[in-house]
Amino acid sequence: MTGTLYGIGTGPGDPELVTRKAWRLVQEADVIAYPSAEGGDSFARSIMADAIKPDAIEIEMPVPMVSGRAPAQAIYDDGAAAIRDHLSAGRDVVVLCEGDPLFYGSFMYILARLRDDFPTQIIPGVTSMTACAAAHNHALVARNDVLTVLPGTLDNDVMLDRIKASEAVVIMKIGRHLGRIRDLLSTQGLAQQALYVSHASLPHEKALPLSNAPDTAPYFSMILLYKGQDPWI
Amino acid sequence: MTGTLYGIGTGPGDPELVTRKAWRLVQEADVIAYPSAEGGDSFARSIMADAIKPDAIEIEMPVPMVSGRAPAQAIYDDGAAAIRDHLSAGRDVVVLCEGDPLFYGSFMYILARLRDDFPTQIIPGVTSMTACAAAHNHALVARNDVLTVLPGTLDNDVMLDRIKASEAVVIMKIGRHLGRIRDLLSTQGLAQQALYVSHASLPHEKALPLSNAPDTAPYFSMILLYKGQDPWI
Repeated sequence: MTGTLYGIGTGPGDPELVTRKAWRLVQEADVIAYPSAEGGDSFARSIMADAIKPDAIEIEMPVPMVSGRAPAQAIYDDGAAAIRDHLSAGRDVVVLCEGDPLFYGSFMYILARLRDDFPTQIIPGVTSMTACAAAHNHALVARNDVLTVLPGTLDNDVMLDRIKASEAVVIMKIGRHLGRIRDLLSTQGLAQQALYVSHASLPHEKALPLSNAPDTAPYFSMILLYKGQDPWI
Repeated sequence: MTGTLYGIGTGPGDPELVTRKAWRLVQEADVIAYPSAEGGDSFARSIMADAIKPDAIEIEMPVPMVSGRAPAQAIYDDGAAAIRDHLSAGRDVVVLCEGDPLFYGSFMYILARLRDDFPTQIIPGVTSMTACAAAHNHALVARNDVLTVLPGTLDNDVMLDRIKASEAVVIMKIGRHLGRIRDLLSTQGLAQQALYVSHASLPHEKALPLSNAPDTAPYFSMILLYKGQDPWI
């Protein structure tokens, strides 16, 4: 009898925006695993802190913030091996994932290494994307609109093509690209209607018009742009 | 002192996939409102049934399933007027919304009618989109991929352009468009890797390769297509 691998979405940050199922599974878990910033805290663990048993076994995966995939892959190799030992011994393992495990999540690296050998269950979570729309009380996408989600790392030309082909646009992973993207949207007359959010759902959430956004943005910040028919009619 | 308008995402269908915050707010609510299918049940209410107080005041909005916007707008006018009366009298009102209130949700019609006059708070929910990816244990979108969400109603030419410009594609509101979309994906050699889901997270969930999908699909079914780099490497 092997254990089950659970991939659990912890939502955007507010512990109350965790689903009831994710909360229950963590409360019951004897073994949990999560990524952390190398040398720093785990955001996913901090969201779930009040649900974790005091005597739970914890597997931390300190993901290095360096370019190139090899260092991170080595950490996922080690993490997956530790998780595998517990699953093989019949113990369930709950992996905590910020937002939703399958929406731009690193959980896929763990899933890739284990899903052929063990029963697996994914618990979807609230994404940062809809939490950012909630922060602005503004429709993310409506009716029969096309929604496109773009990483901020894209080149200007590609980004602009995709923006033109959509009524609703989410640009993620803004960070150091903020100034460039703001300039790009300005050239198209779109900067005035764009919305900026960082730390959605947390006490230090910032939800501002893009024109009032700070000069430096954290990696986990987002720009929302609605170009469709007025969603309020 | 006016009341607060809450727009609450009830998630994709499983009552355990409701957030802790949404569940608590409904448990505490003296007045709730929700859309229903005209002459039928309310899916949003059915998800939250176990949280609703026996003596809560309920405002049902029976949305007609006809084309044209006027009949539905009349229902939202009536619903918003009833909600307005409670808010004006100082009572909070909780509006239940399938999935997430701001992601293709009809909640925006209520919000449009009330948000200038009353304090408003949106509680984001799990979208059907990530619940469908969870049903297949497959990454929805990864790394620096572009994700595009398309309504199944789009013309073939437009749909194909958008699919070509994205690594990850979600086609929503499939319904009677299933055959046409399957044929379209086949002509591009993409049908084999496409995934079909209906009723995600419910006991009668169907998660199948598109090639094995039933001949008729409900309106709330979805096709997922991942064309990016193998997400499992």
